[in-house]
Amino acid sequence: MSRPVPVEEAAVAAADAAALVAASPRPDRARWLDALAAVLEAHRDELVQLAAEETHLSTSRLDGEVTRTAAQLRFFAGVVLEGSYLEATIDTADATLTPPRPDLRRILRPLGPVGVFAASNFPFAFSVLGNDTASALAAGCPVVVKAHPGHPLLSRRVAELARGVLSDAGAPPGVFDLVEGVEDGVDLVRHPAIRAVGFTGSTAGGRALFDIACARSAPIPFYGELGSINPVVVTEAAARRRGPSIAAGFVGSFTRDGGQYCTKPGLVFVPDSDAGDALVAAIEEQLLLAPSQMLLTEHVTAAFDHHVARGEFDGRSILRGCAAVGETDPVVVTVDLGQFLDRHDYFVHECFGPFAVVVRYREDRDLSVGLVQVEGSLTATLHIEDSDDIAALVEQLSARSGRVIFNSWPTGVAIAWGQHHGGPWPATTSSIHTSVGATAIRRFLTPIAYQDCPPALLPEELTDESTVPRRIDGEMVSPSRLRA
Amino acid sequence: MSRPVPVEEAAVAAADAAALVAASPRPDRARWLDALAAVLEAHRDELVQLAAEETHLSTSRLDGEVTRTAAQLRFFAGVVLEGSYLEATIDTADATLTPPRPDLRRILRPLGPVGVFAASNFPFAFSVLGNDTASALAAGCPVVVKAHPGHPLLSRRVAELARGVLSDAGAPPGVFDLVEGVEDGVDLVRHPAIRAVGFTGSTAGGRALFDIACARSAPIPFYGELGSINPVVVTEAAARRRGPSIAAGFVGSFTRDGGQYCTKPGLVFVPDSDAGDALVAAIEEQLLLAPSQMLLTEHVTAAFDHHVARGEFDGRSILRGCAAVGETDPVVVTVDLGQFLDRHDYFVHECFGPFAVVVRYREDRDLSVGLVQVEGSLTATLHIEDSDDIAALVEQLSARSGRVIFNSWPTGVAIAWGQHHGGPWPATTSSIHTSVGATAIRRFLTPIAYQDCPPALLPEELTDESTVPRRIDGEMVSPSRLRA
Repeated sequence: MSRPVPVEEAAVAAADAAALVAASPRPDRARWLDALAAVLEAHRDELVQLAAEETHLSTSRLDGEVTRTAAQLRFFAGVVLEGSYLEATIDTADATLTPPRPDLRRILRPLGPVGVFAASNFPFAFSVLGNDTASALAAGCPVVVKAHPGHPLLSRRVAELARGVLSDAGAPPGVFDLVEGVEDGVDLVRHPAIRAVGFTGSTAGGRALFDIACARSAPIPFYGELGSINPVVVTEAAARRRGPSIAAGFVGSFTRDGGQYCTKPGLVFVPDSDAGDALVAAIEEQLLLAPSQMLLTEHVTAAFDHHVARGEFDGRSILRGCAAVGETDPVVVTVDLGQFLDRHDYFVHECFGPFAVVVRYREDRDLSVGLVQVEGSLTATLHIEDSDDIAALVEQLSARSGRVIFNSWPTGVAIAWGQHHGGPWPATTSSIHTSVGATAIRRFLTPIAYQDCPPALLPEELTDESTVPRRIDGEMVSPSRLRA
Repeated sequence: MSRPVPVEEAAVAAADAAALVAASPRPDRARWLDALAAVLEAHRDELVQLAAEETHLSTSRLDGEVTRTAAQLRFFAGVVLEGSYLEATIDTADATLTPPRPDLRRILRPLGPVGVFAASNFPFAFSVLGNDTASALAAGCPVVVKAHPGHPLLSRRVAELARGVLSDAGAPPGVFDLVEGVEDGVDLVRHPAIRAVGFTGSTAGGRALFDIACARSAPIPFYGELGSINPVVVTEAAARRRGPSIAAGFVGSFTRDGGQYCTKPGLVFVPDSDAGDALVAAIEEQLLLAPSQMLLTEHVTAAFDHHVARGEFDGRSILRGCAAVGETDPVVVTVDLGQFLDRHDYFVHECFGPFAVVVRYREDRDLSVGLVQVEGSLTATLHIEDSDDIAALVEQLSARSGRVIFNSWPTGVAIAWGQHHGGPWPATTSSIHTSVGATAIRRFLTPIAYQDCPPALLPEELTDESTVPRRIDGEMVSPSRLRA
């Protein structure tokens, strides 16, 4: 198994490869992505075993994650082939305007080498060949991944497979590499050859690296996905109608795979009513059935225990079972609105692991007051009935999150053109971007306009003959219309 | 004439207005923009007079700038009405996928109150009602403008007209306001209600504000357009064929309106050959005909004189006339490649005003070595002939600039869907965005996805009935196809 290379070597190789990768035809990059998907699937059993040993996640979950990661890679291959992501735009010359308009042709081009920080909690899907790597390669950028220390052997093995596959597929040397260690991570963000960074991890770690990226003599974009509390609101009507199923769904979602999802619902607003009481009782019942779980790392376990201890809850407010040594039980804390407001800094702070807070609210106004304290999240979830008048609530949650979910749960992020995985600070460092979905590719692209450019010198997608979707003189022209 | 309001008052009013402005129907915002365009034109003579007194720019230039600014406002009205900028995307549910795909609908929504820093050199087009304000209002964001101290009376008068017109058009109070002064500018970037900043100005000032935006407890995007040297390359064939017209074009472009354009061509690579000698001689001739000019402010004049003095050029390398008191003559410095490389830090540094450097190069390799020292620019310009083999040169310039211009000049930035006014650092703080052209609006928008949302709660543009351009299940659907 190969060992990681120093940052300098990887970054310089990436810089050397950048022009070739950028100039690679889109079908070539799509083939690279397809080949990476195939190699993960071909080595599925070996990789799942390695991941299970290092992360304590279940093999069934990890098996599904390999499937998901391969699907993500193929999805970005499709995005590259489709070509809309280039935002090709042509404005023909018009001398009658003020100022006169020359022939202008705009396209997005790759930013250059990208640093990717792998996450602990998705050893495949947000790691070495995860969304950041897939979207950066799709964009035409070389990638240097900083491995997560929670799964070093898996990271090295995946990187080794990736290097082989990319080489076999004809990708330039330097298109992909792996580095390890905290210092190497810092060096990566500082390296002049690196032009953008994708990061999934903690708020503290992400903020520190964001600050380094901004402090560079030439700052670079830092796309960090940090902490998210993911609020849930259950209306009185929903509690009455579907209390038991909501309780089961909630406990299933926040304890899933040890509660170690960035979209874990960590804060649930439940009405202070008979129906709400029944819902909380049902949560208690479900909680007794929820499994204990060994968390990803000792560091995660210690941080979880510390967070719970910091809460200094009395016996009644904590519901927990009795875990085996090394395992962690799920914890739910129930508070009223006053208690929540008194210690909102604590309660809105994400706790990584199977921890959630239930806040009891009496009136819609109380709910609104409580939600004001909730910071930016990746998701917000509503359990409602058709009879509820909740337009204002939807707006309040829309301003605080990147995805609003109705009558379902936030864990499980579908791969789709319209997916958005982002949100206001501290959910992300750059709320106008996403790390999942087709538009994740845009993070690694920069516009350029060619003015009165001879056709032979234009990128192929800007020539009159191209069939990629384009805007011409302000109107979208799809390939099917061009062929018609 | 009304006086500026304190930042706190303006920012809180903007925050109070944000939800109403965001919820305003797109046709309403288009009307606001059209009304702002109309009021500038209705007060054209008064405003041009005021601007001429404060900026020393010619009334003909300022008259054209009013026309341009009105066109920009109307352009963004058109962008808002067309609706593609929303990037509306619908993915229908598909339970067969891993993970299963729910109904997902994505749209861009306004970020919230935007701070805009007006520029000195475009008292209309990049000032109180300039591109940043127009694109932010178009996006549905309230705007607080920080006036440029170079034209305070004009700024206040335009703001007064804008407030009146917006109020008459039914825009919410707080949608627009003006603040003044360095401290107020800093307070604006720090204010928690402000969610993004647009800036056009110096590298030093922009960097200081960028650092403040990044250091906030919740960082916000800072879209700064800073310094740009705007390199030009003349090939041997072009020098031979069109030397005199290139010389005239160059001098006209770099001295235009006192050389106070962010796209001023400040560095020209001319072949070291007989044709190059003739071109430089023609530049000398043209320079004698170029007018002296009173620059925008005493500060600009002092900075210009300081930059020229720092050069410590001998008599031969400086070509200048004899300006009247208070006026500034254009300056061209001619150096060979060795001299350029020895002091490239000086020569690639933008000097605001009518200053330009001519670098003589012998071979294509010398040219490439010289260009390596050139930092990110808004533009790069090529003067070539059909016989030139310049694909590698175009690539080198594409990596260093936001717009590549062929056989023309960079000053004069057309308003167009595909325009790009941006570039790598230090041209901008965020090279993946533009401050001119249709996509300038995207700087002030953030994505949100609705999962399994009841139709009655969706934004109008995400309902099945909407006719805005959308992507449905991965395929672009234009309104004309929907209507067909």
